[in-house]
Amino acid sequence: MLGGYTGSILRVELTRNKILKESLPEELVRKFIGGPGISTKILYDEVPHWVEAFDPLNLLIFSTGPLTGTAVPSTGRHFVNTKSPLTGYLGEANAGGFWGAELKFAGYDLIVVSGRAAKPVYLYVDNDRVEIRDAKPYWGMDAREADRAIHEDIGDKKVKIVDIGQAGENLVLISGIMGEDASRAAARCGVGAVMGSKNLKAIAVKGDRKVPVADRESLQNCLKELANILSKDPNTRSFRKYGTAGYYSVGMDLGDSPVRNWTRGVFKGADKISLPGGYESVYVGNRACFNCMIACRRVVEVNRGRFATAPEVEGLEYQSLAALGGNCCIDDIEALVKANDLCNLYGLDTISTGSVIAFAMECYEKGIIDENDTDGIDLKFGNKCALIKLIHRIAKREGIGDLLSCGVARASQILGKETFDLAIHVKRLEVAMHDPRAFQALSLTYACSPTGARHMEGETVFAERPAIDYPELELSDLDRLSTKRKAEAAFKVQNLWSALSASGYCLLACATGTTAYPINLNVQFLKAVTGRKLGFKGLMKVGERIFNLRRAFSMKHGLRREEDTLPRRLLEEPLKEGGSKGSTAKLTEMIGDYYRIRGWNPMTGIPTKDKLAELELDDVAASFY
Amino acid sequence: MLGGYTGSILRVELTRNKILKESLPEELVRKFIGGPGISTKILYDEVPHWVEAFDPLNLLIFSTGPLTGTAVPSTGRHFVNTKSPLTGYLGEANAGGFWGAELKFAGYDLIVVSGRAAKPVYLYVDNDRVEIRDAKPYWGMDAREADRAIHEDIGDKKVKIVDIGQAGENLVLISGIMGEDASRAAARCGVGAVMGSKNLKAIAVKGDRKVPVADRESLQNCLKELANILSKDPNTRSFRKYGTAGYYSVGMDLGDSPVRNWTRGVFKGADKISLPGGYESVYVGNRACFNCMIACRRVVEVNRGRFATAPEVEGLEYQSLAALGGNCCIDDIEALVKANDLCNLYGLDTISTGSVIAFAMECYEKGIIDENDTDGIDLKFGNKCALIKLIHRIAKREGIGDLLSCGVARASQILGKETFDLAIHVKRLEVAMHDPRAFQALSLTYACSPTGARHMEGETVFAERPAIDYPELELSDLDRLSTKRKAEAAFKVQNLWSALSASGYCLLACATGTTAYPINLNVQFLKAVTGRKLGFKGLMKVGERIFNLRRAFSMKHGLRREEDTLPRRLLEEPLKEGGSKGSTAKLTEMIGDYYRIRGWNPMTGIPTKDKLAELELDDVAASFY
Repeated sequence: MLGGYTGSILRVELTRNKILKESLPEELVRKFIGGPGISTKILYDEVPHWVEAFDPLNLLIFSTGPLTGTAVPSTGRHFVNTKSPLTGYLGEANAGGFWGAELKFAGYDLIVVSGRAAKPVYLYVDNDRVEIRDAKPYWGMDAREADRAIHEDIGDKKVKIVDIGQAGENLVLISGIMGEDASRAAARCGVGAVMGSKNLKAIAVKGDRKVPVADRESLQNCLKELANILSKDPNTRSFRKYGTAGYYSVGMDLGDSPVRNWTRGVFKGADKISLPGGYESVYVGNRACFNCMIACRRVVEVNRGRFATAPEVEGLEYQSLAALGGNCCIDDIEALVKANDLCNLYGLDTISTGSVIAFAMECYEKGIIDENDTDGIDLKFGNKCALIKLIHRIAKREGIGDLLSCGVARASQILGKETFDLAIHVKRLEVAMHDPRAFQALSLTYACSPTGARHMEGETVFAERPAIDYPELELSDLDRLSTKRKAEAAFKVQNLWSALSASGYCLLACATGTTAYPINLNVQFLKAVTGRKLGFKGLMKVGERIFNLRRAFSMKHGLRREEDTLPRRLLEEPLKEGGSKGSTAKLTEMIGDYYRIRGWNPMTGIPTKDKLAELELDDVAASFY
Repeated sequence: MLGGYTGSILRVELTRNKILKESLPEELVRKFIGGPGISTKILYDEVPHWVEAFDPLNLLIFSTGPLTGTAVPSTGRHFVNTKSPLTGYLGEANAGGFWGAELKFAGYDLIVVSGRAAKPVYLYVDNDRVEIRDAKPYWGMDAREADRAIHEDIGDKKVKIVDIGQAGENLVLISGIMGEDASRAAARCGVGAVMGSKNLKAIAVKGDRKVPVADRESLQNCLKELANILSKDPNTRSFRKYGTAGYYSVGMDLGDSPVRNWTRGVFKGADKISLPGGYESVYVGNRACFNCMIACRRVVEVNRGRFATAPEVEGLEYQSLAALGGNCCIDDIEALVKANDLCNLYGLDTISTGSVIAFAMECYEKGIIDENDTDGIDLKFGNKCALIKLIHRIAKREGIGDLLSCGVARASQILGKETFDLAIHVKRLEVAMHDPRAFQALSLTYACSPTGARHMEGETVFAERPAIDYPELELSDLDRLSTKRKAEAAFKVQNLWSALSASGYCLLACATGTTAYPINLNVQFLKAVTGRKLGFKGLMKVGERIFNLRRAFSMKHGLRREEDTLPRRLLEEPLKEGGSKGSTAKLTEMIGDYYRIRGWNPMTGIPTKDKLAELELDDVAASFY
């Protein structure tokens, strides 16, 4: 086996209460590297198209990459894949922290969970000792409470835990899987609800093993080089301080950050919640994920008043700030800290939660729903108390929260045609907080994604900003508002991100221009750790293979070409003000080119036989041809 | 509007707590008559392919035909359609009784239930007064207890109720919807679980209206003719006494009735449970559905001992007798009465329940599962106490019951490859209790059905028996063990049954040769009631249209041509004894012919464009071409 891998998959069958260790096939490693690449291959092979998301036969796969748990910085993430109950297609989410590294130390590259426990359970992994344990005492607890209670019962602080809050237990379709004291979220695509459907409250992991490294000397050299680059770089310094939240004012200036359910280009209250800006009033320090040189996480707290939180809770990321803040027109940073913390406790996806509340607010202001529907809540944009109340109701599926717990797509289907245009989603997944009207290539990333409009599918924002350049991508001098070369940009960024995720990288730190982390170092680190000579081009080819495999999974489960689209609002309603004034998402201008570059049949959207053969995905071709 | 119809659809949206009455479009009536025909059209148009069975967006549709609630005998059925959680495709079930007629009297042809109530509710329909009422007091009750409690609380004996037992509440995938004191079951395809997922415990209906009839005189003449025919007919007399249970000994002689999970052609204990035979010891009388001249239902009771039941419970139908009896090798009629009654109380599909228990017994005898898996139950074939224990566990999803509650297909997926051949299902639905090795055309009915292996898809048994002849079908002199003209037979019987179901007929009484009810009288009754001149050929064309629409629904939701198949055991393992000794299901010999006759593309199984155009299903074609 190559360096970087433990070589083991942990299989946990909850219906039969069986645990099985099996070898990670080298063929999977060669073709898909790790993370979502290998997970999707297992899902593709083992989950038939007729299996529904909450079916015991659905798999919930936790994975790492070869770099996870090594000395390579910014590789603290773990990945979650499953069939999504929100989209019905490939579900994917990831989170930073320490859990992924600990899983590697315990001796596993992946955990594949199947079946459904008859009673609430949690999984305990201590190296070779693996147990399915009773979780009845923790069921009903929020994610932080459960994390602490399990820690206390185990009596070992080294243990790292991922778990679900009440939202996942209640099968809320916009629930995620939390980590480490409910501070980190693998949030998207309803992965928390799948964990809930399996009656699996938590996975507690610890281990003593070391991740093998192929070439220690080369790794040390790369580390020195990176430290040197980052120490001199002003972007890195800024990102270290402000993290992703620092983008809020930037995004607002660019007309990239949604306001009032995607109808406005400017948010007057932006300064009150930006960092620097009003966000500073709640800021108390920084935190790092496993072995990260950046430490971009912010620690915040609200000490008193109705939005008081526990001490030192996790600060809002850019996505949460935009979704709960500007998109709902909430300009009170204390309310937002509270809202964000509540989402973390319940285990709710902040992007989807903010989106579905913004949707409900617009329905309310348009008179489509009224106080009879909202249990008397005055659901106007900007009502911070309404925001907090709705989060409780969504997690508990109470009153209107039961409707909203299904996400905007289903809620609008139930509310009727006049709400269809207010539901901002792609393939049922609420659109992430970058506006394709501000960055044209995002139109393609969102519309043609196998998982819906996730920013982690290939956030082209960096590639479309002239200030940031990754020379290997050969994408300099793009104009963000123009469609020129955007099919190529989306293609390249999606492939790159697929490959880097599979390797175990934190894309935020390594591939978005937030830091000066060079792409060629990504490639060198991977070589040093695994011993495999892949090179930049080889890596991009693996990324393309993974992206097509992920596409194929969703198509096997029903995704059709017509669903490669965007909400009408983004396609047809230009913003009336701000940095992207007058722009619409010109998807139709680009999608033909994109399909051509991808080698997808323009009528069906299915990768052509030739493309699949070129990518060594012939076994996948058999499902379509 | 034609005679026979109330002209109204009742829409109930449980998420928003809304009730809406709308007109039944005449175009739907013309093209699909009623029942599953119209229901499937609504499902096709309104349930997107990505909606899962337990999604609030899934629809649960209760329907009747134009003959329901009229003087035409043997039209006491109602139909249930939904997206099935068991198959993922079209779900369909039907039950006799009085509920369907009462729904018509209340003024509705269909009830379309959408959404999901936040708390348990039941629907109360009294003519124009329609209310969504709290069902918390009834949740957790069995189907009979709930029926009686609701009756008592309403204080009106005229009310007719359908409800779910604990199995539906617990989302057991093999649960049905019970009717009238838990005596009648719309059992198949997991429709009860869909009702449970909507938090809908029951629908109570009463009404005072009359169903309009176009030509009363002609109706009277037909009635006289039918009464005359039936009074002289020995088959009718026998069916009146023994009902479907009378077929058990006949089926056993023909090698048609499964034994020991479909591995044997003879069941030694058959006489002990047959009627006439051991069944007589528990028999106490007969019962009729609404306005039926036959009254084929048997009332039974076990007065003492460990299998004692309540007084006057419903007797086992043929399907239940074969599934719980011979297929599990249980030869104690009292145990079977108890098992059947338990299934009715919990709201379990007896066919699927018997099948999944027979499957588990074979797994146990082969050593694939042992007493650790079965909670200590000695799961040998013939163990009547094990049968009873498993029924409780399946309904409650306790222990091994949780695994078995998913049906044989999912259970075998979880137990592993060595059990795949023991799981006797088509498209995840457990095969009904007629053996295609005994009646070759059944291979096609089962394999090519949009809903899985339901006998109600077109039970060719009557057409393949030389004793019974419907001259209109032009199918005389078929040899049941030969494949000759069987594609044609399956095609005709499926079309006929689709049309007769849509009209509201009880197929058992009117189209299986159990009685002398002539097909031309079916046609004449329909004309007399509706005033529409359809004729036999016109009726068959509507049947073909409905069948193709039902197929199209399932294909839109993922059904593939490869799934048009049978369990390997039926295809390759000949019975070693009995009336069909040496025979296998020769599906591959017939399926090409069948596709050709159907006008389906032999590669994809999708109806050709020309066929869809011929059937005026052009709007459906848009989903595929």
